[in-house]
Amino acid sequence: MDTKAASRLPNQLITNVLVVAATHGNEMSGIELVRNIQSNSISTIPDELSFTVDTCMANELACEKRTRYVEEDLNRQFSQEKLSVLSGESLEHQLAIEFNHRYGPKHDSRTDLLIDIHNTTSNMGPTLIILECDDFHLAMSRYVKANMPEAIILVEDEKPFLDHAYLCTVGKRGVMIEVGPQPQGVLRPQAYLQTEQMTQLLLSFCELWNRSLNQDVNALDTISQLAPIEAFRLTKEVYFPCDEQGNKTAMIHPDLQNRDFIALNKGEPTFLDFHHQAIMWDGDNDVYPHFIGESAYYHLNIAFALAEKTEI
Amino acid sequence: MDTKAASRLPNQLITNVLVVAATHGNEMSGIELVRNIQSNSISTIPDELSFTVDTCMANELACEKRTRYVEEDLNRQFSQEKLSVLSGESLEHQLAIEFNHRYGPKHDSRTDLLIDIHNTTSNMGPTLIILECDDFHLAMSRYVKANMPEAIILVEDEKPFLDHAYLCTVGKRGVMIEVGPQPQGVLRPQAYLQTEQMTQLLLSFCELWNRSLNQDVNALDTISQLAPIEAFRLTKEVYFPCDEQGNKTAMIHPDLQNRDFIALNKGEPTFLDFHHQAIMWDGDNDVYPHFIGESAYYHLNIAFALAEKTEI
Repeated sequence: MDTKAASRLPNQLITNVLVVAATHGNEMSGIELVRNIQSNSISTIPDELSFTVDTCMANELACEKRTRYVEEDLNRQFSQEKLSVLSGESLEHQLAIEFNHRYGPKHDSRTDLLIDIHNTTSNMGPTLIILECDDFHLAMSRYVKANMPEAIILVEDEKPFLDHAYLCTVGKRGVMIEVGPQPQGVLRPQAYLQTEQMTQLLLSFCELWNRSLNQDVNALDTISQLAPIEAFRLTKEVYFPCDEQGNKTAMIHPDLQNRDFIALNKGEPTFLDFHHQAIMWDGDNDVYPHFIGESAYYHLNIAFALAEKTEI
Repeated sequence: MDTKAASRLPNQLITNVLVVAATHGNEMSGIELVRNIQSNSISTIPDELSFTVDTCMANELACEKRTRYVEEDLNRQFSQEKLSVLSGESLEHQLAIEFNHRYGPKHDSRTDLLIDIHNTTSNMGPTLIILECDDFHLAMSRYVKANMPEAIILVEDEKPFLDHAYLCTVGKRGVMIEVGPQPQGVLRPQAYLQTEQMTQLLLSFCELWNRSLNQDVNALDTISQLAPIEAFRLTKEVYFPCDEQGNKTAMIHPDLQNRDFIALNKGEPTFLDFHHQAIMWDGDNDVYPHFIGESAYYHLNIAFALAEKTEI
């Protein structure tokens, strides 16, 4: 089991949560959920929480154009360097600066928890991406998994929280919901329902967390009883085989497609070249592909990402 | 069984075939297949055919931008009216005029058969869309189904061939390959392999057709033995439930998603509203939804199309 990381933040009350959608303008499960919350047409957010919940559509123009982004990927604009300039060099860079001004700033944020909602065309299921493994995120992950056994916890803590350029790092704490499969620009009922459920669980966890910090016995008890869980830790990306001109010479092997978070071992089919010859895995054993065949990474020649299994 | 329609064209030899991809710039199975054919890297097209095969990427700019279209849907620009003007009012309208000039013209085409390759985010499987039911298309459909039993034949003959505004109507004859599920902007191995197989079957059928017109006994025999098959005929589109502002109030029901070309009957779940209440089908019995949750139709509020079952 992983040793718990030293906490960057003290264990503080959550006083406000920001739920963000449309960081990518064609990821519809978050967009439809936040639209529904904003129009008060559904009761996703429980009454009588001990904190406020605000919502935001991060890239309205991309949303209108039904595209991931207009000029650049918004979810790669939140580095300390990019946020330090006065005006952005692209629409998304500018949006990042304004978002940081309104909801951050990144180093000293007015937002206690930022939940950024995404979806993927890969078969990742309902995934919670956390960027650090302190008390708060460990308990949150265990709570989600206890209440939604099909949830996957993906840890991306290869660098410090503030060194990520993700939008969610504008919050004091930030996590991403990443549900798949769902094609871009359309809603899949399962993805919507899982996104809604995970959002609700994150909010109910914050309520539990606050009550535990206020020494509520039941809350302390519930949190202390949360068992360690299986999780995955991102290691690296795997690229498509390409020719000298950089054109792909193969596709994902049919036996690998949709097997996100299932162990891949040496000698197992990974790619199928356009002559129908299988290409076998020649890397480490017991690695866990995910984002297999994610549409947004296809033109970058990224075939999938790898993770190792861990316990948190 | 359907009565065969009166033939618009005499039974002529196929002297040339045009295979088109990128009519929609984010439909990757056709795009990758045609790229592979063009680079001679794969042997999709059999040697020694009695006709020539040419290929074309219909919308290079949309392809580069990884989008369905830049200004307008190219596959709706080929009406007789739109093709009759000298210059187009949008990029795609202009492309249509130029395409028609090069490969048509629509009423008196230099292209004997135009195969336009598409894919869909819905679970339609490998579908051949035909726009008329004459000797040629009947035999072609039966031949495809005989050699690829999982193929679906979808007939859209609610109006005369030349009255359609589809790109494939620029050919003397034109058909569409429509394979799903595949998200936009990425390749799914199964969709690619099915697209490749169906393309090859259409070409080998043309060879068989030519040999039969040249009184080759085996070819005549093969064609005469092709049995009638089950097919589907498009009837109408079904829209999402919306509120007064035109916002969707429901999603596809989880029990309906992915059940393309499976009978839907009165009282069966069709939509799930955002309060999690099921909305049951209240239309005709024994209708066949397809294009269920197609991404390109989502913003148009089209939930799916309906077909009736037929035999051809």
